[in-house]
Amino acid sequence: MGDILVDIAFFYGIICIVVKKTVEMEDEIMRKRNVLVAQSGGPSPVINASLQGVLEACFESGKMGCVYAAHRGIEGVLLEELIDMTKQPIDEIRRLKNTPAAGAIGSCRYKLKENNEADFERIIDVFRAHDIGYFFYIGGNDSMDTADKVKILAEKQGYELIVMGVPKTIDNDLGDEERTIIDHTPGYGSCARYWAYIIQNVNEENRGMCTSECVSVLQAMGRGSGFITASSRLADPNREMPLQLYLPESGLSMEKMLANVDDELIRSGRCIIVVPESFMTDPASQLRDGFGHVEYGASKTTAMQEVVNALNKHGFPVRGQATGQVPGVLQRGVSLHASTIDREEAYTLGRKSVEFALTGITGKMATILRNSDEPYSVRYEHVPLSVVANRVRYLPKEWIAQSGIDVTDDFIRYARPLIGDSMPEIELEAGLQRFARIKLTFVEKKLPEYTPCNMANCSH
Amino acid sequence: MGDILVDIAFFYGIICIVVKKTVEMEDEIMRKRNVLVAQSGGPSPVINASLQGVLEACFESGKMGCVYAAHRGIEGVLLEELIDMTKQPIDEIRRLKNTPAAGAIGSCRYKLKENNEADFERIIDVFRAHDIGYFFYIGGNDSMDTADKVKILAEKQGYELIVMGVPKTIDNDLGDEERTIIDHTPGYGSCARYWAYIIQNVNEENRGMCTSECVSVLQAMGRGSGFITASSRLADPNREMPLQLYLPESGLSMEKMLANVDDELIRSGRCIIVVPESFMTDPASQLRDGFGHVEYGASKTTAMQEVVNALNKHGFPVRGQATGQVPGVLQRGVSLHASTIDREEAYTLGRKSVEFALTGITGKMATILRNSDEPYSVRYEHVPLSVVANRVRYLPKEWIAQSGIDVTDDFIRYARPLIGDSMPEIELEAGLQRFARIKLTFVEKKLPEYTPCNMANCSH
Repeated sequence: MGDILVDIAFFYGIICIVVKKTVEMEDEIMRKRNVLVAQSGGPSPVINASLQGVLEACFESGKMGCVYAAHRGIEGVLLEELIDMTKQPIDEIRRLKNTPAAGAIGSCRYKLKENNEADFERIIDVFRAHDIGYFFYIGGNDSMDTADKVKILAEKQGYELIVMGVPKTIDNDLGDEERTIIDHTPGYGSCARYWAYIIQNVNEENRGMCTSECVSVLQAMGRGSGFITASSRLADPNREMPLQLYLPESGLSMEKMLANVDDELIRSGRCIIVVPESFMTDPASQLRDGFGHVEYGASKTTAMQEVVNALNKHGFPVRGQATGQVPGVLQRGVSLHASTIDREEAYTLGRKSVEFALTGITGKMATILRNSDEPYSVRYEHVPLSVVANRVRYLPKEWIAQSGIDVTDDFIRYARPLIGDSMPEIELEAGLQRFARIKLTFVEKKLPEYTPCNMANCSH
Repeated sequence: MGDILVDIAFFYGIICIVVKKTVEMEDEIMRKRNVLVAQSGGPSPVINASLQGVLEACFESGKMGCVYAAHRGIEGVLLEELIDMTKQPIDEIRRLKNTPAAGAIGSCRYKLKENNEADFERIIDVFRAHDIGYFFYIGGNDSMDTADKVKILAEKQGYELIVMGVPKTIDNDLGDEERTIIDHTPGYGSCARYWAYIIQNVNEENRGMCTSECVSVLQAMGRGSGFITASSRLADPNREMPLQLYLPESGLSMEKMLANVDDELIRSGRCIIVVPESFMTDPASQLRDGFGHVEYGASKTTAMQEVVNALNKHGFPVRGQATGQVPGVLQRGVSLHASTIDREEAYTLGRKSVEFALTGITGKMATILRNSDEPYSVRYEHVPLSVVANRVRYLPKEWIAQSGIDVTDDFIRYARPLIGDSMPEIELEAGLQRFARIKLTFVEKKLPEYTPCNMANCSH
């Protein structure tokens, strides 16, 4: 009898251990929910560094399940096109840092419209089907708006989901002018370095060729926000070049530009002018993207062309012609010009967004705030998505020089650290750039096919 | 008496030695005539490497006097604006190799017209006034024509002068299609590397953004010669990208382009097209330079714009718009994209031109000929200036693929070695590119002022 009691106690003990283990394993499984990361909007030279940061922090956490990337941003979510990033070779993940633009997993300009509830419902359906517990969205103000809406709908449906935004835009137009929301966006430093370097190059060109090509016109991205145009000043912080910046915030006319250029040509026989893509007089020539924003790259004419024509028609007080350059997407995708500082910060913001998510923070965007200009020092925090969503930052008025065609030294102190001090590491293979090769094989679809609202409306 | 004879013999001996020494010194002085080096036409990322090669070989020879550089090419000769290069810090001369474009000593597009004898006479006057015994002219076919004419006039006037040409042009349009005159021109390899790299970057961009920006259009330099457009293929030797090259030699119409793009969009949903600057339908929009050549950068519209507009008007079988890029002078002046091979060859051609000159060779252009593609091997020779002058090389027909929008593997075998295998050395200072700083102080003028013929005719 004593033996039987001992046996019962023994078996009871074993059962307890088994039950406990099972509960623990279930907890473990419960905690290890899957991750979805996606990108949206125009790319930057370091957008993939943020992607890598998210991926590596997820892999290393040990607390997450599979890590999926949506193919072409929110479109991939709607179409249930998910790439299993845990199945990619680790060397290719490592190479993301040196891979510019959004070719690795794709991006899009798909607008999730308020009244298209079907799209939002579909997103939650896909999340549910693939047990997505974490959603990381790398993008600008439109994307933060989208992420915020997804979070709100998930809450409404009682679907447990952590949503984190990761900032990205070469335009540097997120947040507020006081820089309490974000100091600068990843991508801007690399774009600024592109401009600093090419203006140095164009200065050598223009100085050498000015008796035949006296004015060199370059068109900068940034829509109505002048941060990119302003960054050209970094090429020449001591103001030795005949450089004029037509900041959109200055609102100068074509006539004023002609007079300014005449003045500079009389002074130095040559002139370099940077005009924002929005420096145009003919809105009829503008095409728009899915968000209703002007797609300047697709316009029937360009700010560069209007300025070059106005200059050549006007004539010059010296010999020569005006010639024009439109770097276009090169300023957001040439890896050789990437800033090492920008790349590292983009990577860190990706990692931080995961660290925040793991503490249960949701509905926020990881952000970067500045401690000091010199020595340059930053800290990483988070801000509500709703604060960032659909808000455009312009170049602060106090950073525009009185002439309207230059920035102040305060701007230089702000922007200079962002371009870094060294060349980025560039991996070459057979003399060409070796970028990450992400295999675009999708995980098995679990839902019926779906036609996204905007695609249904589209003519093809 | 014997003593007197001894004394006379002694003094005679001394006199003989003195006379001999004087003659030797005079010989030495005669041999050490001054050097003039100048540049002409549009620059390249490695034009200054040739300049450095000329300078260093002159300095090292011990057989030349002062080495002057003409400020802004032949214009500086006419205006007697000569820079004493022997007075520049040696570190700045060394930095020329990493300094792109023609800003260091300047270039021009001044056309020496046959009937403007006054200009030619003036050149010889300036040479005579500064005892120029060697003239090195770095440039393309127009420049070789100018150099040849200067040589002929000097001979006619009995003025002793050694004239050597140093080839330079990103267009690679010097010489003959069989490449017996020159295999390739310095500058082309760096421009080709620019295109190889940016097409790699644009491919990442276009792949990532194709649901909104389905066609990326890029405009290449090269006038009517397709070598630069062709070099884009180096980005993708295995033909994995949806890349179309509108080689000027193919003569394809805008309609054919629209059909080709439609085909590619149906195949892969996206397309990258490179169009030469001459791919335009409206000659009325073209402005011309001093040589009567079309100055495409100054045109009232661009090939890019015409193509983007035709595409967007035509519409697409997929979602998206066409967007355009005009790199313009960036393709001939961005040092980060310089080819190490190209840079070294440009430097060597500068040196070789001096070595040839020192053996008495004159009226020739130093040239580079190929021994083999793999391993890549070249030799340096010289060809008469008259053979190179005013001759344009086009992309050989046999290197154009049957489609008309691609090149053959033979072209790849030809062009691939020219872009090199490694990153160029880039000197940075405070995070920016550190270029050579040549002091533009002119040597004392010895002649009355002169107004060059083309400047006299000019309205300002």
